[in-house]
Amino acid sequence: MLATVVPYSKMALPIRGNVKYLLQFVQNCRSPKRLFCAGQCADGKEPSGGRVFSGIQPTGVPHLGNYLGALESWVSLQNQYPSVLYSIVDLHAITQPQDQALLRVNILDMAASLLACGINPETSILFQQSQVSEHAELSWILGCLTSMPRLRHLPQWKMKSKQRNEGSVGLYTYPVLQAADILLYKSTHVPVGEDQVQHLELAQDLARIFNNAYGDFFPEPRALLSSTRKVKSLRDPSSKMSKSDPQKMATVNLTDSPDDIVLKIRRSVTDFTSEVTFDPEVRPGVSNLVLIHAAVAGCTVEEAVGWAKGLDTGKYKQLVADAVVQRLTPIREDIERLRGDRGHLERLLAHGAQRARELAAPVLKEVRHRVGFC
Amino acid sequence: MLATVVPYSKMALPIRGNVKYLLQFVQNCRSPKRLFCAGQCADGKEPSGGRVFSGIQPTGVPHLGNYLGALESWVSLQNQYPSVLYSIVDLHAITQPQDQALLRVNILDMAASLLACGINPETSILFQQSQVSEHAELSWILGCLTSMPRLRHLPQWKMKSKQRNEGSVGLYTYPVLQAADILLYKSTHVPVGEDQVQHLELAQDLARIFNNAYGDFFPEPRALLSSTRKVKSLRDPSSKMSKSDPQKMATVNLTDSPDDIVLKIRRSVTDFTSEVTFDPEVRPGVSNLVLIHAAVAGCTVEEAVGWAKGLDTGKYKQLVADAVVQRLTPIREDIERLRGDRGHLERLLAHGAQRARELAAPVLKEVRHRVGFC
Repeated sequence: MLATVVPYSKMALPIRGNVKYLLQFVQNCRSPKRLFCAGQCADGKEPSGGRVFSGIQPTGVPHLGNYLGALESWVSLQNQYPSVLYSIVDLHAITQPQDQALLRVNILDMAASLLACGINPETSILFQQSQVSEHAELSWILGCLTSMPRLRHLPQWKMKSKQRNEGSVGLYTYPVLQAADILLYKSTHVPVGEDQVQHLELAQDLARIFNNAYGDFFPEPRALLSSTRKVKSLRDPSSKMSKSDPQKMATVNLTDSPDDIVLKIRRSVTDFTSEVTFDPEVRPGVSNLVLIHAAVAGCTVEEAVGWAKGLDTGKYKQLVADAVVQRLTPIREDIERLRGDRGHLERLLAHGAQRARELAAPVLKEVRHRVGFC
Repeated sequence: MLATVVPYSKMALPIRGNVKYLLQFVQNCRSPKRLFCAGQCADGKEPSGGRVFSGIQPTGVPHLGNYLGALESWVSLQNQYPSVLYSIVDLHAITQPQDQALLRVNILDMAASLLACGINPETSILFQQSQVSEHAELSWILGCLTSMPRLRHLPQWKMKSKQRNEGSVGLYTYPVLQAADILLYKSTHVPVGEDQVQHLELAQDLARIFNNAYGDFFPEPRALLSSTRKVKSLRDPSSKMSKSDPQKMATVNLTDSPDDIVLKIRRSVTDFTSEVTFDPEVRPGVSNLVLIHAAVAGCTVEEAVGWAKGLDTGKYKQLVADAVVQRLTPIREDIERLRGDRGHLERLLAHGAQRARELAAPVLKEVRHRVGFC
């Protein structure tokens, strides 16, 4: 079975088209300081301390939407926070059926991709979740502080259990493990997609519940709202770009060849107006290309539209494709080089796990003491 | 908060008065060989191999009902199986609210009591569940193979969530952790109370589900139905003896002084017939005393009734009290001696945990490999 690509900021399925709800939620948020844009402190200054934690499901090589929507900001967070952990969350992956051989490959491909995208394994702690036993242990303890109904309406369960018309205990308790992932490192900041805000709220609640029961210990982690760039499917710009999209032309993967990228972008669905404008509501297809163009070229949407002046959409597609190829070529080459040396990747992950354990062990030890185990 | 006394064979609440259902269940059991009487093989011969696992919640010093109903058979199983593990299951204990200082004391008191009752820490592996991280890890993996509805009707959740009109995720997923406890050691035999048969069925199902998904690996653990001796409350012989009974005179604890034991048995509820007979349905009070008498004196119920010939219930109570005092005195003295040396108990538990980890680690390593983590 093919695993769904779920970058961490999308560890739960998106509430598609539910942005209005989210904006309302953000506006009404009881504690608005808990939400920031990635890389910014409440007062807009560079953060002077804190620990960032985020995770990504091992779905193999990510696609362009994952890269521009989340991984790029992960890379920049490395220079903004003194302590950064990124985890390949394989314990989360098995909440959906997985082919075990493919899962192993996907874990290593994800590790190669993160490194190729710019995650520095010396600056950040890059590790595989299941190699650090404290995640499952803290998850059990936090589960004893979580009421059953608290999880019933969280997006991961609602969407995925409905898709299959059933769900496992793992899928239901997924957000508790996510809370454990974050709290285990006393993380202060968590880059999340908008759809993950409800799950982060559970982590915040559990920090409070634990602190109330056992004395102040966990900081309440704050959401770093990652880039609001939402790259859409090239075949259906009303839905997000997704690895599990059955239309192979809909998704640009980070390892696609230049020819494939050119072909996919040339065939992308736009409309019958030849001029290039940015209007996501009325012209989602061409606006998606402008968004991608601006993102890979590192310019604003307005600048991208400016460069497109005088070009019809056909010619503009070539311009966008060239920019994407230029941006992705070194990443693709790095991924291919890295995935060729499985031993190196395994050693890197083992090193990361060891560093993660060094942080996790004293935290869990103190938790165990406070709970009364020792 | 005071922890409820829940010996492992009673890790879930009993389905009181549901013995008919159980007997029917046993008769209809799809795989009748999975149920045995403690210490017996299917063919009645002494077992030549296998591994026994059982757990007990850290509820402090056990009472007479725990001792006669479960712990005595734990002691004898040590000589019948080549490998025996007994775990003080503190991860299970926190599925109900606990006072953390009392929990720590209760863990050590339970360890002292088990040793005093005859658990040999060299023959058996006696350890504290939370000291072996593999329990929580395997529980997460098994939870991903367990459907949510599968747990809804299990006794632990039904009874305890109803009592409090709510329940935690930990309480709901309790039987999955119990399955992990058992399978982690590839246990073949599990002494359980009748009320635990449904929980053991989950462990059997999960062994099958795992084996089907990832290749044959776990043996299906078999229930050793522990002694059917059910010691009743001395104040209300229609209900079981229980540590949480609000009537302190209802329960004989293993550390009760001889005077207290004599007083509790002298005041025990019987009836207006002075002759001693054994008829649990019609005369539950005096029959409970006969049962206790036979158990502590190591004779049959008929022999106990024979010894009571010519005595009225008042005099018989003295006889029973003397027999209980005689049986419990060395145990009480041992508990008191052992609980006085906390360091010794902690070292013993640490040694047990190390031995348990030596068995658990290769099993979990293989599970992780089969699942695709490594």
